[in-house]
Amino acid sequence: MPAAVGLPSTLVTSLHRTRRSTVRAALVADGIDALLVTDLINVRYLTGFTGSNAALLLVAADDEEPEQAHGHTERTTDEADPRTRFCTDGRYTLQSQEQVPDLPRLIARPCDVALLRGAPAGSVGFEARSLPVAAYDVLAAVARERPRPVSLRTTLDVVEAARVIKDPTEIDALSRACQVADQALADLIAAGGLRPGRTERAVGLELDQRMRELGAQDPAFETIVAAGPHSAIPHHRPTTAVLQRGDFVKLDFGAEVDCYHSDMTRTFVLGEPQAWQREIYDLVHAAQAAGRAACVIGASGDAVDAASRGVIEDAGYGPQFAHGLGHGVGLQIHEAPALARGAASIMASDMCVTVEPGVYLPGRGGVRIEDSGVIRPDGYHVLTQTSKDLGVL
Amino acid sequence: MPAAVGLPSTLVTSLHRTRRSTVRAALVADGIDALLVTDLINVRYLTGFTGSNAALLLVAADDEEPEQAHGHTERTTDEADPRTRFCTDGRYTLQSQEQVPDLPRLIARPCDVALLRGAPAGSVGFEARSLPVAAYDVLAAVARERPRPVSLRTTLDVVEAARVIKDPTEIDALSRACQVADQALADLIAAGGLRPGRTERAVGLELDQRMRELGAQDPAFETIVAAGPHSAIPHHRPTTAVLQRGDFVKLDFGAEVDCYHSDMTRTFVLGEPQAWQREIYDLVHAAQAAGRAACVIGASGDAVDAASRGVIEDAGYGPQFAHGLGHGVGLQIHEAPALARGAASIMASDMCVTVEPGVYLPGRGGVRIEDSGVIRPDGYHVLTQTSKDLGVL
Repeated sequence: MPAAVGLPSTLVTSLHRTRRSTVRAALVADGIDALLVTDLINVRYLTGFTGSNAALLLVAADDEEPEQAHGHTERTTDEADPRTRFCTDGRYTLQSQEQVPDLPRLIARPCDVALLRGAPAGSVGFEARSLPVAAYDVLAAVARERPRPVSLRTTLDVVEAARVIKDPTEIDALSRACQVADQALADLIAAGGLRPGRTERAVGLELDQRMRELGAQDPAFETIVAAGPHSAIPHHRPTTAVLQRGDFVKLDFGAEVDCYHSDMTRTFVLGEPQAWQREIYDLVHAAQAAGRAACVIGASGDAVDAASRGVIEDAGYGPQFAHGLGHGVGLQIHEAPALARGAASIMASDMCVTVEPGVYLPGRGGVRIEDSGVIRPDGYHVLTQTSKDLGVL
Repeated sequence: MPAAVGLPSTLVTSLHRTRRSTVRAALVADGIDALLVTDLINVRYLTGFTGSNAALLLVAADDEEPEQAHGHTERTTDEADPRTRFCTDGRYTLQSQEQVPDLPRLIARPCDVALLRGAPAGSVGFEARSLPVAAYDVLAAVARERPRPVSLRTTLDVVEAARVIKDPTEIDALSRACQVADQALADLIAAGGLRPGRTERAVGLELDQRMRELGAQDPAFETIVAAGPHSAIPHHRPTTAVLQRGDFVKLDFGAEVDCYHSDMTRTFVLGEPQAWQREIYDLVHAAQAAGRAACVIGASGDAVDAASRGVIEDAGYGPQFAHGLGHGVGLQIHEAPALARGAASIMASDMCVTVEPGVYLPGRGGVRIEDSGVIRPDGYHVLTQTSKDLGVL
């Protein structure tokens, strides 16, 4: 089992400890003694664990002294423990030893209940955006039954707020995910894979397979191949529809590499573009450039969206651009910050976001152009390197 | 976009209406006026919709008269509406027209809030196992602000209880998913793909690709290829470890076909088996047969588990079988009923479940044998047809 980000294990554990420190500072600021992390993506971010069942009790006052962090596995315990502890079930005993060597580990089910039983007295935050009501009800009963009191506290986006700013290992993984997608598309085109007569589904399968062969664990999401009128559907599942000469074909896809997700859209014309195709392509191309230019430190998600959307609205196609401009990418394909109307998020250095305006003409066709990139002091750095000139195949 | 189960659309809509009727009867029995279905899998089951954002308000008193079911799309409304209504966002306007032609459709965000605003007065159940606390808090505020009162009611597994019994279209889809997995494994072996010198990852990629070429939308879950000592890890992600002569190699995999998931495990020996390998293989083989034999109408999940587990315990390997015997399969790879210690579920006709005992010897190797099958009046019918005799490659 390789470590989550392909680094020596000492570096990886130091990385996760740094992330835990960042979240601890947020807990202290909020007056919360411990955070019960049940969202699996957040558990992965803070520990490196990649299995399907786990939780983490992050204790704010625990400085994770090395002599504490001997990582032994306890089968179960109800005694209060002052340490930050990781919990998974018996299927993952070995895997958690390899991936989470630096934290005390508990083997129990359900993980959230086991950790809450052993939490030190005080306030324990829970992740209200992901914790289901039924699971909360069980935890509330456990909190009431404990001999030493625990008060459950609603929290929103505590770990997510830390995840918005990517560290160098994350940016490296995202860059490699983008490179895999770029290369797979280049290889697909070089092999003549984008041609009239093929089905959307065949193109999608080939693109996915090429990404896997180039090192992707998986496609980052279900690859969109949308030909002709289907290109006017923002989200379209590949069908047996056949690519036709003269049609748009829109590809929205990405690679998952070391658990990080790239996201890219390119739209091509199969043959010589007609005037209406060139018009909306050039329009979206200009809007995408405006969005990238506006994606600077200090700008709001609303302002970045408006800069790009304004180009499309000025040309009279505002209603034909019915989705947001972009979103963060990372351990999830869609995460904070949002680049959309009304989004209050403020752009900061080392955020990784997509910029993806589109214009969709129902029954005719549509264009979307999307990059993934990282925000730096000198502006938006594109990680997806494929050309955005109109590709005529 | 093909319909969800590959049938003529009139049959499909009739199918979903039948499922909604079943759930309505449960609502009436529980005294609930409407159910706000937010779990996407449950939305898919009740409507056929396959997108990533949607909700359904299932009104118990609505008999879905054909003259009501004209399926027009409303952009938004706050007025109370007595009908069962579907909601998604603007990305899925066209897709929802194709997939959900038989229900009034609302285009709004967030879907749950929009549907609750327009719900008829009375009690509205919510799905407490999946609805996050933060989403519930928003709904509770909406319920308080409504001019006509709505009381939110906790529900558990209302739709899941209906899903436990599969209808013929579901069993057909599961059968096809099992056939794809069987054929992909047969082809892999016939092509010499399971041989010393290959990596776990290469074997897994080939198996996945073969399933896709045979019609799987995707693998049903991350394929497990576990060689040598790795076979002692119940859940193991394929690595670059190389298959060695004399080793066990354990393959746990399945295909997703029309949104239904097959699940199968076979364990092979690369060369002549050693005595200890044959011993635990024969033991697991006998335990699996005992589990299948016990999987009859009226038996509890606990009893089926015990019948299989007892064979392993009698041989002294009880502690080396640390997971449950099986689980339901369907729209999810793991769903009700559970076949495990203490599971109170009662087997019934047309349930689809796995039977998958294992024995794992850390550092040496392990064996698991798993079928997916359907429970019928005359017993458990295996859907995964690959031989369970010890495969010596």
